[in-house]
Amino acid sequence: MQNMTDKTVAVVKGLIMDGVAKANSGHPGGAMSSADFATILFSEFLRFNPDDPSWFNRDRFILSAGHESMLLYGLLHLNGFISMDDIKNFRQLGSLTPGHPEVHLTPGVEATTGPLGQGFAMSVGFAAAEAHLRARLGEEAMNHFTYALASDGDLQEPIALGAAALAGLWNLGKLVVFYDSNKIQLAGPTCKADCTDHKKVFEGLCWQVIEVDGHDHEAIRAALNAARDEADKPTLIIGHTVMAKGCATLEGSHKTHGEPLKADEIAATKKKLGLPDEAFHVPADVLDAYRARFDSLRSEAALWQTRVDAKLDEDADFAALWAHATRPRPELSIKWPAFTPGESMATRQAWGKCLDAVSGSLPTLVGGSADLDPSNQTMTFRTTYGDFGVDGHKARNLAFGVREFPMAAIMNGMQLHGGLLPFGATFLTFSDYCRNAIRMSALQDLPVLYVFTHDSFWVGEDGPTHQPIEHVSSLRLIPDLIDLRPADANETAVCLDIALKQPRHPSCLFLTRQGLPVLDPAEYPSIVEGPRRGAYVLQDCEGEPDLIIIASGSEVSLALATARLFKRKVRVVSMPSAKLFDDQPESYKNEVLPPQVTPRAAAEAGRTGLWHKYVGRDGVVLGLDHFGASAPGKTLSDNYGFTPENFARMIREKYEELT
Amino acid sequence: MQNMTDKTVAVVKGLIMDGVAKANSGHPGGAMSSADFATILFSEFLRFNPDDPSWFNRDRFILSAGHESMLLYGLLHLNGFISMDDIKNFRQLGSLTPGHPEVHLTPGVEATTGPLGQGFAMSVGFAAAEAHLRARLGEEAMNHFTYALASDGDLQEPIALGAAALAGLWNLGKLVVFYDSNKIQLAGPTCKADCTDHKKVFEGLCWQVIEVDGHDHEAIRAALNAARDEADKPTLIIGHTVMAKGCATLEGSHKTHGEPLKADEIAATKKKLGLPDEAFHVPADVLDAYRARFDSLRSEAALWQTRVDAKLDEDADFAALWAHATRPRPELSIKWPAFTPGESMATRQAWGKCLDAVSGSLPTLVGGSADLDPSNQTMTFRTTYGDFGVDGHKARNLAFGVREFPMAAIMNGMQLHGGLLPFGATFLTFSDYCRNAIRMSALQDLPVLYVFTHDSFWVGEDGPTHQPIEHVSSLRLIPDLIDLRPADANETAVCLDIALKQPRHPSCLFLTRQGLPVLDPAEYPSIVEGPRRGAYVLQDCEGEPDLIIIASGSEVSLALATARLFKRKVRVVSMPSAKLFDDQPESYKNEVLPPQVTPRAAAEAGRTGLWHKYVGRDGVVLGLDHFGASAPGKTLSDNYGFTPENFARMIREKYEELT
Repeated sequence: MQNMTDKTVAVVKGLIMDGVAKANSGHPGGAMSSADFATILFSEFLRFNPDDPSWFNRDRFILSAGHESMLLYGLLHLNGFISMDDIKNFRQLGSLTPGHPEVHLTPGVEATTGPLGQGFAMSVGFAAAEAHLRARLGEEAMNHFTYALASDGDLQEPIALGAAALAGLWNLGKLVVFYDSNKIQLAGPTCKADCTDHKKVFEGLCWQVIEVDGHDHEAIRAALNAARDEADKPTLIIGHTVMAKGCATLEGSHKTHGEPLKADEIAATKKKLGLPDEAFHVPADVLDAYRARFDSLRSEAALWQTRVDAKLDEDADFAALWAHATRPRPELSIKWPAFTPGESMATRQAWGKCLDAVSGSLPTLVGGSADLDPSNQTMTFRTTYGDFGVDGHKARNLAFGVREFPMAAIMNGMQLHGGLLPFGATFLTFSDYCRNAIRMSALQDLPVLYVFTHDSFWVGEDGPTHQPIEHVSSLRLIPDLIDLRPADANETAVCLDIALKQPRHPSCLFLTRQGLPVLDPAEYPSIVEGPRRGAYVLQDCEGEPDLIIIASGSEVSLALATARLFKRKVRVVSMPSAKLFDDQPESYKNEVLPPQVTPRAAAEAGRTGLWHKYVGRDGVVLGLDHFGASAPGKTLSDNYGFTPENFARMIREKYEELT
Repeated sequence: MQNMTDKTVAVVKGLIMDGVAKANSGHPGGAMSSADFATILFSEFLRFNPDDPSWFNRDRFILSAGHESMLLYGLLHLNGFISMDDIKNFRQLGSLTPGHPEVHLTPGVEATTGPLGQGFAMSVGFAAAEAHLRARLGEEAMNHFTYALASDGDLQEPIALGAAALAGLWNLGKLVVFYDSNKIQLAGPTCKADCTDHKKVFEGLCWQVIEVDGHDHEAIRAALNAARDEADKPTLIIGHTVMAKGCATLEGSHKTHGEPLKADEIAATKKKLGLPDEAFHVPADVLDAYRARFDSLRSEAALWQTRVDAKLDEDADFAALWAHATRPRPELSIKWPAFTPGESMATRQAWGKCLDAVSGSLPTLVGGSADLDPSNQTMTFRTTYGDFGVDGHKARNLAFGVREFPMAAIMNGMQLHGGLLPFGATFLTFSDYCRNAIRMSALQDLPVLYVFTHDSFWVGEDGPTHQPIEHVSSLRLIPDLIDLRPADANETAVCLDIALKQPRHPSCLFLTRQGLPVLDPAEYPSIVEGPRRGAYVLQDCEGEPDLIIIASGSEVSLALATARLFKRKVRVVSMPSAKLFDDQPESYKNEVLPPQVTPRAAAEAGRTGLWHKYVGRDGVVLGLDHFGASAPGKTLSDNYGFTPENFARMIREKYEELT
C-alpha cells in the first residue's frame, strides 16, 4: 500500500515519461532519479503563493539540471501554474513547456537553465540577493530559502565550484542545493569522467554537506530540515540515487538520459509504480493531498503583505528602500556628474566617477569587480560600502575574486530575484570567460550591467592576452545585448544612464584604459542626447556630405581629427551602440547615414568585419585584424596606424575624388 | 653569510625589481613571493638541455601566474636562453620579454599565460600528453615532469578546479603544481574573496597535497622530492609565502602586485638582500653556481638521444609511432571515406565516420567530447580506444566530462607539449564556455581541432539555450582561427583534412545535427578541392552572373534550391571558411565574387551582420538575428523563413530587376 508521497512521486514520474514520449524528445532518466527529492520539496517545504507565482518573498527553486524540465513542469502543474495542455505540448513551438525551462515563458520557472553549472551559480545569486535584502529590509519583508537541484554534469562544470566558493565565503545559510548523484551522465558512467569527493570539496569551500539515500523520503526530509537549521553555511545535500529510478528494466542505464522510454518500458514501469495504464494520469486524491497546504501558504503570503504594508506606513527608511527595490528601471531618475571639457580622462575613470557620484542615491545598486577594483575603478565603491558576506550582508560591494563566469551568473541570479541593480566589472578580454552567462542575461531579459574596461590594444604593456581585438564586435553579435562604447567622459555618463534604465536588456560598457579628451557639449551639443539613439551626427558639414566617418569610443576623437585633414564636406558620426542604432526607425538611420552617400569610413580599435554593414563592402575601415603585442599603447597606436594622417591616407587611397 | 641559493634568489629578485622599474610597468610582488620556489626548481630540479630549449624530453615549466613574467625571464637568463638586453627590454615592442610570457616569442617559455587559470589547465594537458606518450613510446623516450606555478587568482578561476579534477582522475603523477599562497591579490587580501581550504579541496579532487613555508628552502626541496616520489597522484605544493618577500618596507602589501617599486624601496630592498646598488646585477659566482649542473644536463640529453636512436633502429613499431609523433602536420597523408551522393547525412555523422575511418592510421590523434559522445559522434572512438587515465594512459579517448573550458586548455597544453594531434568536441553553443581557450589556441599558434556539432537553430527541441545564433560569426572574429562550416558529408571530409594539416592555426568544425543531402562530386566537381580556398563557385551560370548567392553549411543546399527558382544567371558560392577565403589573393577573390556584380545574397542560419562584408550594405542576408525557440527543427525552419521560396522572395524584393 503506497503512502501519498509515493503516489505523488509515481504520478510525477508518469508525467515525465508521458511528456517526453509525446514530444518524442527529452530527458527522462535524471528527472526520475530526482523525483523523490523534488516532490517532497515542492509538496512539503517550498513556500510559494498558489495565487501568485511571482510573490516577492517566495522560496526560489532553480532547476540547474535544466534538461530535467519535465520534472519541474509536472510539479508546476500540481502547483496549478500550468495546465495539462501545457504538459502535453512539451517542446512544441509557442508552448509554456519548452525543452529547457525558460523564465520569461513559464509561471513558476525562476531561471532559464540548460547550460550546465549556471543554474547552480544563479542560485548563489538568488541567495545573495535574498541575504542582502533581508539584511537591509528586515526579516519581516524578506526571508526565504533558495533551493537548487543539480546533476553530475552541473557540478562538473567549473563555474559551479567557483560559485560555490563564493556562497561559502558569503555565508549564504539559506541556500540549499540538492545534488542528484545518480552516477550516470549522457555518455556513460560518471566515474569515467570524475573521481571527485564532493563532500570533501564542498566542505573545503565552506559548505555544510549532508549525504543521504536520495530515494529515502525520511532522510530527504531530515536533510532539508538540517539544511534549513544551518544559518551560516550553504548546504549541499548529496542524494545518492539511481538513474531512471522506478523504471521496469532501465534503472541505472545511461540510455534513459536523453531519449524517450519506449512504449513497453513505460507500460511496465507504470505497472511497477502502481499507476494505471493511462497517459498523463493525475488522480484527484493526489492533487487534493498536494494542495492541502495551499490555504496555509495563501495565509502566509497574506500575512507577509500585511506586515509589509504596516512597515511601509511606520518606517520611512524602509519605505524609501522598498520603493527603490520595486521601482521599474525606466523610472529611475539619476543625476550624473559633469566633466570638464578639454581634460584628458579615461572612460573607465569617468565610469568610476559616475559610480561614486550616484551610488548614494541608488541604494539598490550592488556589484563589484573580479579582483580588478583599482583598474575597474570600483575601489571607492568597495571601501565605501564594504564587501558583501565578509563585512556582513548589508555590504554592497561584491568581491568576486578572479571568477568572471560565476560573477556574471550570480548577477543574473540577483536580477532574477528582483529588488537590486547588479553590476560586474572586469577587463574586456576576460568577457570571454563569462560569455555564455552574458548570453543568458540577454536570453532571460535581464537588464544587468557589465563594465568592461581596458577595451583595446591601448591596454599596452600587458600584451596580446590582455588586449581585446574581437571582443566588442563579438559581443555585439549576442542578440538583445546592448553594446555601449562611449567616446568620452560625457558619453560615458549618458551610456550609463541608458544601461541602468533598461527595462529588459543587459548592457556592456566598453571603457578605455587610456585618457581621452573630454568633448565640449557646447561645441558638440548632440552628445547630450545623441547616444540614446545608438549613433548620431556628432559634427556635420553644410549640405550633403562628401564623406561620412563613423567611429566608436576612443576612435571618435581620431575621427574628428581626421575630418579636419579634409577640405571636403565631412560628417562625423559617433556610434556608441550599434544595437541601439539598428533598433531605430529606417528614417532616422537614413538621416544619420544617407543611403546615397557612398564614401564612408569607420574607425574602431578592433576587428573590422562588422563595420561593412555600415560602410559597405568597399568602405574604408581602420581597425585591427590581428593580435596585439606587448608595448606602450602609444607605440602600438602609431604602429597600427591609428593616427589621423594614416586614416586620412587610407580614405584618400580608396576615394580618389576626395583627395 | 648567504648561501648560494639565497644569493641566487636575491639576484633574481633584483632582476625582477629592475626589469619592472625600467619598463615602468609590471608585477613585482608575486614574482618575489614565488622566487624561492622557482629558483630552487630551476637550479636544482628542472631537467632541460642548456643547448636546446626545445629538447623533446625536457621537464616542462608553466608559469600559470603569467603576470610574474619577470621571474621567469630572470631564470631563463640564468639558463642562457635570453640575454641581458632582452631583460632590459621588458614589455617593449619586438622584445623577447613581453608583459606576459608568449610561447611563440621566447625560448624556454612553454606556454602563453596571463589569462588566469589557463596555465594551470594547460599544465594538465602537458602532463597528460607526457603520460600518454610515455605509455606508448616507453620511458626511455618520454619521461619528464610537468611543473606549474600558480597564484591565488589562478586557483580562484574555476577552470583550475575543473582541470584539477581531470588531473586527479587521470592519475597524472608527474604533474607538480606549486601554489604561491601569498594571501594578497590585485585588489586586496585574498581572504576578502576566498575562504577555500585548498588542501581539502584538492584532496577531494584526488591530489596529493603538501603544505610548506614557501620561503623555507629545505621544505621546498623536501616537497619537490615527495611530489616526484608520488607516482599516481598529481601534487599540489601549497607554499605559504609573503607577498613581495624581501622588500624593505612593502612585504605583504597589495601595492606591489601590479606596479613598479619606487627607486628608494628598490635601493633599500637590495641592501636588505645583500645586493650591490647596481641595476641588473648578475655576478659571475651566481651564474657559475647556477650552471654547475649544465654539463650533467647536457649528458642526460645526449644519453636520451642515444637511447632513442637505438630504439629507432631496433623497434619498428616504436619507429613508426615516433615518425607520427614528430611528423610536421602538413605532411600528413590521410585517406578519407567517400559518401554516397543523394543520401541524407548530418555533417556531424560524416565527421564521426571520417574519425572512425582514419583513427587507426593516425595513431597520435587523441581527443574526446565534453560528455556528449553520442551527439558528437565520438562514441566509437571512445569504445575503441578506451578512456585515458581511467583505462590506463595508453587510451586515446579523453573523457572530459562536462568541462569545456578545461577541455580546450588541456588540448592547448597537449599541443604545446608536442607529439599528438588533439581534438575536443561539444555543442557549438557551449563553445562560449571555452572561448578564451580557443583564443589562446590561436594566439599560441596551436593547430588543435575543435569539433562543434549542433550548429544552428536546427537543434530544435532543446531550445534557445542550445541553439547557436551568434556563435559561427563570433568565432570567425578570433584572429587566426580557421572556421569550417561544411555543406555536406564530402565537404566535411575536406574540411577535416584542412584542419588536421594546419601547421599553426587552430580550426573549428561547425557541424549540423540534422541530415543534409550529400552532394554529388560528379555534378559539383569543385567540391573536391574548392573548400581549401575558403569559398568557391559550386554551381555557375554562363557568363557574368545576374546574382551571386553565397552560403555556408546547411544553407548551401538551400542556396542551390533557391537558385533553381530564378530564370536568370545565378552563381552559387559555397563558403565553408571565411578566414581561408579572406586569406586568398585578391585575384581569386575577385574571380569568385566579381566586384562589379552587385546583386548578392547570402544565407546562413545565424547572425547576419558579418555577411555584409561580402554582399555589401544593401545585399540580402537570410539569417537569424534573434534567439531561437524550443520546437522541432523543421517547424523553426519554416517559421524563420529558411525555405527556397522565402529566400527567393527576399532577393526579388531587393533586386526588382531579377523578378
